Amino acid sequence: VNISVTLGARSYTIVVERGALGSVGTRLRALGVGSRAALFTDPEIFRLYGASVIESLTHAGFAVATVELPGGEAAKTLAVAADGWNACLAAGLDRSSTVLALGGGAVGDLAGFVSATYMRGTNFVQLPTTVLAQVDASSGGKTAVDHPKAKNLIGAFHQPRLVIVDTATTDTLPAREYRSGLAEVVKHGIVLEAAYFDDVEASSDALVARDAATVDRVIAGSCRLKASVVERDERESELRMVLNYGHTIGHAIEAATGFRQLTHGEAVALGISAEAALAVRLGLASAATRERQERLLARLGLPTRMAAIDPALVLDAMARDKKSRDGRVPFVLAPEIGRFTVVDGVAADDVRAALAAISGR
Amino acid sequence: VNISVTLGARSYTIVVERGALGSVGTRLRALGVGSRAALFTDPEIFRLYGASVIESLTHAGFAVATVELPGGEAAKTLAVAADGWNACLAAGLDRSSTVLALGGGAVGDLAGFVSATYMRGTNFVQLPTTVLAQVDASSGGKTAVDHPKAKNLIGAFHQPRLVIVDTATTDTLPAREYRSGLAEVVKHGIVLEAAYFDDVEASSDALVARDAATVDRVIAGSCRLKASVVERDERESELRMVLNYGHTIGHAIEAATGFRQLTHGEAVALGISAEAALAVRLGLASAATRERQERLLARLGLPTRMAAIDPALVLDAMARDKKSRDGRVPFVLAPEIGRFTVVDGVAADDVRAALAAISGR
Repeated sequence: VNISVTLGARSYTIVVERGALGSVGTRLRALGVGSRAALFTDPEIFRLYGASVIESLTHAGFAVATVELPGGEAAKTLAVAADGWNACLAAGLDRSSTVLALGGGAVGDLAGFVSATYMRGTNFVQLPTTVLAQVDASSGGKTAVDHPKAKNLIGAFHQPRLVIVDTATTDTLPAREYRSGLAEVVKHGIVLEAAYFDDVEASSDALVARDAATVDRVIAGSCRLKASVVERDERESELRMVLNYGHTIGHAIEAATGFRQLTHGEAVALGISAEAALAVRLGLASAATRERQERLLARLGLPTRMAAIDPALVLDAMARDKKSRDGRVPFVLAPEIGRFTVVDGVAADDVRAALAAISGR
Repeated sequence: VNISVTLGARSYTIVVERGALGSVGTRLRALGVGSRAALFTDPEIFRLYGASVIESLTHAGFAVATVELPGGEAAKTLAVAADGWNACLAAGLDRSSTVLALGGGAVGDLAGFVSATYMRGTNFVQLPTTVLAQVDASSGGKTAVDHPKAKNLIGAFHQPRLVIVDTATTDTLPAREYRSGLAEVVKHGIVLEAAYFDDVEASSDALVARDAATVDRVIAGSCRLKASVVERDERESELRMVLNYGHTIGHAIEAATGFRQLTHGEAVALGISAEAALAVRLGLASAATRERQERLLARLGLPTRMAAIDPALVLDAMARDKKSRDGRVPFVLAPEIGRFTVVDGVAADDVRAALAAISGR
């Protein structure tokens, strides 16, 4: 499936296809970019897919330098970005050249930031290999590195020229990482499209079993929903806030637990559970709407309850949210499956109650 | 004078006016931004104008943090940018907040880069206090820090929300800095508008004497020409290359002499002289067109000849130009005053001859 992201001069295609990594060279060549490229990747992903990607690029006439990054979030530091700029310079990259990110969300964030800032911007290609990166992080143009005090504090909006989602890469994901990515799938259904939520609900067993046709259909559906939001609000001024459903509390839980106990997807699942409870408490949603969200998360193997957490830590982390405006964070909530609403000025007491509602397992 | 830069959602106004620094608070308030701001400046400029800018902002209801940067090019390092991000975080800035740059080109480049990348972009206001920054660097959205091996290697395009050119600040500039800024004025005339070049030529004595009405008219004219180019090519894909007239060889001379002997404007004056000679050598321009450019530069107190320089150093620096594509740099040349043309594939021998033509003083 080819999904268009229409953004004027910055438009691009998301290719969702089993085995598509083998076509990266010809697809990139068709964009008319310069002949030099740098492939950013983590060592484990490189071991699995690096040879075929490099072969495809070389065969299409590209000179490719490989930049191996530390695994996971450790890639997202300014020091690693500096190594990336050095590598681009050493390989003779210029503005007509291309930076490619082969890996999960962290690789895409770091490589995207290097691409956004090297010579004020080179071409960028996303080759996401985790469910999370495929359905969410790889499209939309958000790039970032972490600050010691705040995740993703330093970054840029920089749209890719091409996103290639090779769904075969999900076959090799560890179970916990695979499941974590599905939290974003559930999020897309809840706030954007009831029919998609229904499909994920009806296909949850096949999805957990990684049935190929189901995985491909669900991932393509999520990419399509994400693309439609990005098209309408490229720089997260209004509508795109919808994608933060489950993330306002989820991010804060991640921060309050030191980014170690939970994967991002697990924190989002808890955030969805808490924000669903918040919507009920504020009289915006029914208990049945909340329960349906939790039930699907649970069927996909994601957490909906956690050990009690100090609400002060969570509220403190929320105050540093990038979506805050003069210190106040707007909440995206779901009045029913397939719809969302933005609520300003949620009281700290209501957030505490929402956290209490997901405490205890 | 108010000059509009029309770039869709990123449109903004350049205000050119004596004393305009006193109105920054009300003008910024009118844009509907959040109430927090950080003023980036160098200590010397801050001593001259800081109090009035802060008073204007505070009076309009802004909470302002001041960030003092090292003077000159020393501001443009990643370490200083990191201090800037820390300061923004400590002051509680969010995406609705504003970073202001009060000073010359280096302050604008560094503050603009911090603004472009803090939380993926805050509002940005340029308050340029040198001729160079007023007529060239403050509009157009180029921001950058230096890499140990290449100036401006790391940066972003990030348009300001507002540019306030208070021409009274030129009264306090040291003579060499004032003159250096005029190199960009001459450049705008040569490649963009013969009538403007004629005016600068006819007013050169008054300009050197810093006659207020002349300075204001010439600076506003240059801002208008720059704005028209930026409007037509925001991200330097084609047309905006015209602004690199004198800079391809000029930058390379600057790099080859270690960025110490010459100011940027002096290097640009030498670059214009060399590129004018190159145009004659390639049969594109008459000797009279070359002489007219050199004569105006000389009347404004700018150099047109330099001690002999190793051409290999200059050619080497040119190969790292951000405008190069797969290793080749296109040249912008002026067939006559007020017109330009882009020439690809200039031979190294012709560049050597152009350098020889400006050697010896």
